[in-house]
Amino acid sequence: MSDALKIGIAGLGTVGASLARILQDRSEKLAVTCGRPITITAVSARDRTRDRGIDLTDITWYDDPIELAAKADIDVFVELMGGAGDPADNAVRAALSRGLHVVTANKALLARHGVALAALAEEKGALLNFEAAVAGGIPVIKALRESLTGNTVSRIYGIMNGTCNYILTKMEKEGLSFADCLKEAQRLGYAEADPAFDIEGNDTAHKLAILTTLAFGSEIAADDIYLEGITNISIEDIHAAADLGYRIKLLGVAQRTESGIEQRVHPTMVPLDSVIAQVDGVTNAVAIEADILGELLMVGPGAGGNATASAVLGDIADIAKSRPGAQQVPALGRPAAKLAPYQRAQIQSHEGGYFIRMTVEDRAGVFASIAARMAENRISLESIVQRPKHHVEAAEPKTIILVTHATMEDAVRKAVAAIKGEGYLIGEPQVIRIERPKTA
Amino acid sequence: MSDALKIGIAGLGTVGASLARILQDRSEKLAVTCGRPITITAVSARDRTRDRGIDLTDITWYDDPIELAAKADIDVFVELMGGAGDPADNAVRAALSRGLHVVTANKALLARHGVALAALAEEKGALLNFEAAVAGGIPVIKALRESLTGNTVSRIYGIMNGTCNYILTKMEKEGLSFADCLKEAQRLGYAEADPAFDIEGNDTAHKLAILTTLAFGSEIAADDIYLEGITNISIEDIHAAADLGYRIKLLGVAQRTESGIEQRVHPTMVPLDSVIAQVDGVTNAVAIEADILGELLMVGPGAGGNATASAVLGDIADIAKSRPGAQQVPALGRPAAKLAPYQRAQIQSHEGGYFIRMTVEDRAGVFASIAARMAENRISLESIVQRPKHHVEAAEPKTIILVTHATMEDAVRKAVAAIKGEGYLIGEPQVIRIERPKTA
Repeated sequence: MSDALKIGIAGLGTVGASLARILQDRSEKLAVTCGRPITITAVSARDRTRDRGIDLTDITWYDDPIELAAKADIDVFVELMGGAGDPADNAVRAALSRGLHVVTANKALLARHGVALAALAEEKGALLNFEAAVAGGIPVIKALRESLTGNTVSRIYGIMNGTCNYILTKMEKEGLSFADCLKEAQRLGYAEADPAFDIEGNDTAHKLAILTTLAFGSEIAADDIYLEGITNISIEDIHAAADLGYRIKLLGVAQRTESGIEQRVHPTMVPLDSVIAQVDGVTNAVAIEADILGELLMVGPGAGGNATASAVLGDIADIAKSRPGAQQVPALGRPAAKLAPYQRAQIQSHEGGYFIRMTVEDRAGVFASIAARMAENRISLESIVQRPKHHVEAAEPKTIILVTHATMEDAVRKAVAAIKGEGYLIGEPQVIRIERPKTA
Repeated sequence: MSDALKIGIAGLGTVGASLARILQDRSEKLAVTCGRPITITAVSARDRTRDRGIDLTDITWYDDPIELAAKADIDVFVELMGGAGDPADNAVRAALSRGLHVVTANKALLARHGVALAALAEEKGALLNFEAAVAGGIPVIKALRESLTGNTVSRIYGIMNGTCNYILTKMEKEGLSFADCLKEAQRLGYAEADPAFDIEGNDTAHKLAILTTLAFGSEIAADDIYLEGITNISIEDIHAAADLGYRIKLLGVAQRTESGIEQRVHPTMVPLDSVIAQVDGVTNAVAIEADILGELLMVGPGAGGNATASAVLGDIADIAKSRPGAQQVPALGRPAAKLAPYQRAQIQSHEGGYFIRMTVEDRAGVFASIAARMAENRISLESIVQRPKHHVEAAEPKTIILVTHATMEDAVRKAVAAIKGEGYLIGEPQVIRIERPKTA
């Protein structure tokens, strides 16, 4: 049996502690599978006194994770602290600079500094693995980086935030408001006390930016993502979606278009009978459409200490199974220097179906006016539903729902602005994009 | 850029020709991604004269694939001939014996000789990759062999035969008989002229045997699989399943039980609202339940020249990205010598829910008799449906459908045998096992 692979773990929160316990509890099994033992030789965390169920004998404790990365006797630096700034960034750089392999679950760090870190890893002949950074236990990084080699990806999309999917699922199943479901998510620990990062789509955007680079070979562009969260989704939207054969999911979508690469995160209508529509609760899903392979959909746990630790462990095992310095898989699928500049396709040129829900005054000519504004913008309609908002009473506001055939975002925006100018709308219209899986 | 990776392809049918075209058409892109060019230097096929859209300049043609494997100037032998016997078996052995890496899509070969071939590959320091052998383009081999390292798998199951899934989907959607749907599948090229291998479950069994070994670390046991095809599934079963909230799929299932490992291939009821129930047509799906990761479901194309070629290409790219002799991933997830002997759990001890459909004479006491036979075998019932077979007429045969709670197969068999002995059954009862996804 070869020499042990020595690893240092920075960050012993839920994921780090789970990983350390698994490495210790399953050391014999892992040694058989990997062809050599994997040993934790150094750790770093904020609180040295907490009992995490880990045997710290023979493990060097570092108060400073950057010092661990720079000096510890390790082969692999495992970064599980999170955050795009310090100490994670400097610790990872310190480790790579020494030629150490790095495994990280840090999506924010990669979304911000991924290209620079990948370039540094290549320069030093080190591996930079980050399966856990996107969609937790779903092996989507490996699929894109390894399995799909040679394919041209046309679109990648997914449910990548368990908090949002939990809330949307609960709203639909129990008929509760967004606010009530958010509270329940917080009570169960699925949402943070400050939930903005999840429910406004930023978390999904970080993950999408990483997938976009792997899928399309362009530089990471986390700030060039069109972003809409789920805070405006009402139970009325969810019911209307169901009536029309759709379900609402917060999707991150990246697709190749004629004008560049579209990256967008927004509430999305998916067909009720599609596989992704069945992905409930905190579960994640990622779909990849590629020209040779076809469509691949992966569904699994997107978060949680164990699921994330499993992905981190898979990354460590990949390193353990290869001889030192042997593997040349570029971190971002191709050498960092060969990544194309990111060319952003603006959301205004997005083409797709739209769901538009409006509350209007009940007066003559409203319906004709809406139809005319749509026609002027050459938007053709798949379905139109008009119904009373509450009961059938005269002069009661009416709800009108339109579902368009594929059209341009720009046309939809112009039509909606024109309709708003007519003066019969009550409140803001709701516009939700429709996304259709290619096959399933 | 490093030296080119030289590959030889034996078998230029749909998959082989597709692979060769992709390697030639995308050579520059592949060279960037893999860090070195991938060059076809030798091929072998039956008919030298056929135009396959491949440029054969600078490629050595071999009439004998074994000679190619034994003598050609190659680094990787790609076996796409199929079949467990010769020439595939001897060609792969010849290649491995020289220390060449082997990539194959040959499930029959692996189901039969996988352990011996894996041992030979390890002995010679060669890689044996076979992503395309199970579920075509779905990267389930990589998930089990690499991503899930350290996990203990409790169950793996999937839709692994597109022909069967196409037929079952079409029966349900169009209300057609099994025979009609089979004919249509044959017309579309989804089923062979002799469809037995697909519809009787053998193809699924080969794939399941390979997954079982990767999931549970036991020797391949393709002959120890309980097998039931879909030929007996009637439109009545499909309708009854839908009424009760289920859909019928041909699943391959392997699970760890107290008495060993259960491997079974049979028509299965899955809950209508489960993700796997939405997997339609020729699409495949594989679900893995593991103790650290949780549940992972992958859905994608299970066959077809391009999808299969994509998986083969991923395997070749993995080799191209590592320096020669660098990688130590054991072909079957752990060294062949460390695989445990396969301990078969008999189907009689299978525990699960059952759907039982019987046609009975319409006479007094029948229902009571059935209920009594179930109770005697301590089978508790989740639901009971009795309805007239055609119209409500006196003395018309009745259909009785039972859905049991989790019970033992043995008890179900005894109860059904006892009911058969009562003399009021018309025809054979239909018994279909129910499989429940853990979470989704």
